[in-house]
Amino acid sequence: MNPNVKGVSLSEKLRQIDSYWRPKIIAELNGQQVKLAKLKGEFIWHQHDQEDELFLVIKGKLTIKLLDREITVREGELTVIPRGTPHLPVAEVEVHVLLFEPITTVNTGAVRNDRTSECEWI
Amino acid sequence: MNPNVKGVSLSEKLRQIDSYWRPKIIAELNGQQVKLAKLKGEFIWHQHDQEDELFLVIKGKLTIKLLDREITVREGELTVIPRGTPHLPVAEVEVHVLLFEPITTVNTGAVRNDRTSECEWI
Repeated sequence: MNPNVKGVSLSEKLRQIDSYWRPKIIAELNGQQVKLAKLKGEFIWHQHDQEDELFLVIKGKLTIKLLDREITVREGELTVIPRGTPHLPVAEVEVHVLLFEPITTVNTGAVRNDRTSECEWI
Repeated sequence: MNPNVKGVSLSEKLRQIDSYWRPKIIAELNGQQVKLAKLKGEFIWHQHDQEDELFLVIKGKLTIKLLDREITVREGELTVIPRGTPHLPVAEVEVHVLLFEPITTVNTGAVRNDRTSECEWI
């Protein structure tokens, strides 16, 4: 019964990630996915028109630039970027984040380019 | 613009929780809520008929008894209890967890008793 109910180690999953800005799925529930990503450098300006996006910083310090200001999300902190909010994530040094998003979410939002990544399970 | 977009510290929010088994809301997105709770002792057997439930252990070691076995979720690990799965969370020593659930979720699932807790924001 429920053989898939088990503990999933964030650090073990993070060890399997070897590229930046390519979120990987580690859990799914209620039409949402939990993803892990390693970030380094500057991403691209984008917005998600239909989805709010949660960033929980597991390691490091993430800067998220908004149109009128920027916020800092430190290790052990989370933030929610509301749908329709243009944002630019910046990681001066390597940052590890956990993301909660609807299954439909594309990492680059309404933008499609070479930073767009199809999400895989790890 | 978006004055509410800010970093939310899990440890600061946890300091505001002074009772066990009473989850508090710290974020909301896409019809889901992120909650924090302190757990100690044994909860009650219950199931959520419509909602999958995610436990991410921030501190301590959580045991979740299922009908046919039990699983252990350690610090830095998460698990998803699928809807309709009877489960009994047990925290031998104090455990801190982050929960990710639909807004509709009641902590005691289909059971209503004195452990049932209306969720408040902190």
